[in-house]
Amino acid sequence: MPREITGFSNPLIKRVRGLREKKLRKREGLFLAEGLRILTEARDSGILPEMLFLATGTPPHPLAQVLIDAVEAAGGDVIFTSPDILGKISGKDNAQAVVGVYRDRLTPLADLDRSAAPIWFVAQAMRDPGNLGTLMRIGDAVGAGGVILVDDCVDPFSVETVRASMGALFTQHVVQAEWPDFLAWLRAGPGQLVGTSLNTEFDYQAPSYTAPTFLLIGNEARGLPGDYEAACDLLVKMPMMGRADSLNASVAGAVMAYEVLNQMRRGG
Amino acid sequence: MPREITGFSNPLIKRVRGLREKKLRKREGLFLAEGLRILTEARDSGILPEMLFLATGTPPHPLAQVLIDAVEAAGGDVIFTSPDILGKISGKDNAQAVVGVYRDRLTPLADLDRSAAPIWFVAQAMRDPGNLGTLMRIGDAVGAGGVILVDDCVDPFSVETVRASMGALFTQHVVQAEWPDFLAWLRAGPGQLVGTSLNTEFDYQAPSYTAPTFLLIGNEARGLPGDYEAACDLLVKMPMMGRADSLNASVAGAVMAYEVLNQMRRGG
Repeated sequence: MPREITGFSNPLIKRVRGLREKKLRKREGLFLAEGLRILTEARDSGILPEMLFLATGTPPHPLAQVLIDAVEAAGGDVIFTSPDILGKISGKDNAQAVVGVYRDRLTPLADLDRSAAPIWFVAQAMRDPGNLGTLMRIGDAVGAGGVILVDDCVDPFSVETVRASMGALFTQHVVQAEWPDFLAWLRAGPGQLVGTSLNTEFDYQAPSYTAPTFLLIGNEARGLPGDYEAACDLLVKMPMMGRADSLNASVAGAVMAYEVLNQMRRGG
Repeated sequence: MPREITGFSNPLIKRVRGLREKKLRKREGLFLAEGLRILTEARDSGILPEMLFLATGTPPHPLAQVLIDAVEAAGGDVIFTSPDILGKISGKDNAQAVVGVYRDRLTPLADLDRSAAPIWFVAQAMRDPGNLGTLMRIGDAVGAGGVILVDDCVDPFSVETVRASMGALFTQHVVQAEWPDFLAWLRAGPGQLVGTSLNTEFDYQAPSYTAPTFLLIGNEARGLPGDYEAACDLLVKMPMMGRADSLNASVAGAVMAYEVLNQMRRGG
């Protein structure tokens, strides 16, 4: 049965608010997602929150009612609370009408089935949550399988990343790995590692990409370390016609991924 | 001669801090850009700030010295101030070492030379400064001429837009226009208006794009209004393989623009 919580000092509210911090997310193995659209995307992908928070005062949106029923049927917790408290949980003045608390979704590298998708992203030291979330959204769009995070990437389960992913976090595998472990895993099976780099003149449309293609995207400010570039099967660059020497990391990922997708849908 | 200002309450400091607000930017016809990289990009494009602020205490970086000399030679104002005050101007704790105050760079629609570039962006009600700045950076990368802003777009001269553009604001024309005025101008010369839409199955790689191509990007949440779509010469869609039905606005712009560029560099 849904229950109602009215106090800011309620221990559960405090605990859930704590999930805005990486340390507490990690300790609990839980994260927050907000908004009817994202939570509905998750449900459509078969993923339900362990706890579902909704605002009291207005009857739930029909899609929210679908979520309520699904969470209850799965034995989860449905909690109504004031719009004020919901705003504190979501950290926004203009609170989303629903907030879900989800079990974190890391896939162990060893469990990843590379044959499940033709394209995978590998993000190296990606620091911006907007970039990482956008990369997941691009991954969903091009039919990628997910993103493998190497080195010190931003938390994939931060509120900002989840928001920027627009729900793609729930359709994309997320893996955290050390670079040597990733390389060892990669080389134990089929797969082409493709890096974008300023240190090559090889046009990104020149090669034939073969599935699975792993698109390696370097840190926003520094690009890829030299030894990471050396480990790639291909280094390519996109034409840059102006003064700038690089694109935003997620934008570069999108341009690369659509090239690979376009080749594959031509049967190339 | 460079001069030094040490007080937070100095009227010039107050005035420059005020440029963080759209109303004051508009009244003064000035805007702020921060960071050695962006200011150097601007200088390389032949654009100097009217005022240049630098932090006291450390000798200027060689590139900053180049800026100082150029601004002084052009009769501009070079001002040294404390890192604290510089932080207040730039609104960041970790202040950039240099801040420039620039005359705003709007190009009147009537002055725009469409033949100067093969690609132009038209942003409709774009609300996110990160998206607009990123779109300018993409424009620079693909050799576009600039961005025409229609309807209620975010201020192209906000600190956030300038930052996200990574200096591309200084290589791209920026036009603000009413939609009917833009359409009348467009139809008075050559040019193909191409919209991305969910309301078509026409693949974005199917048509042959001809210069100049105007890529119309709709509002982040709502996409393009129906009558704007009706005014397009072509409506196209990118393949979407996953659950999501759209890409981030600037990402969609990048994928479209690289397709147009790729066709043109094949001589298509």
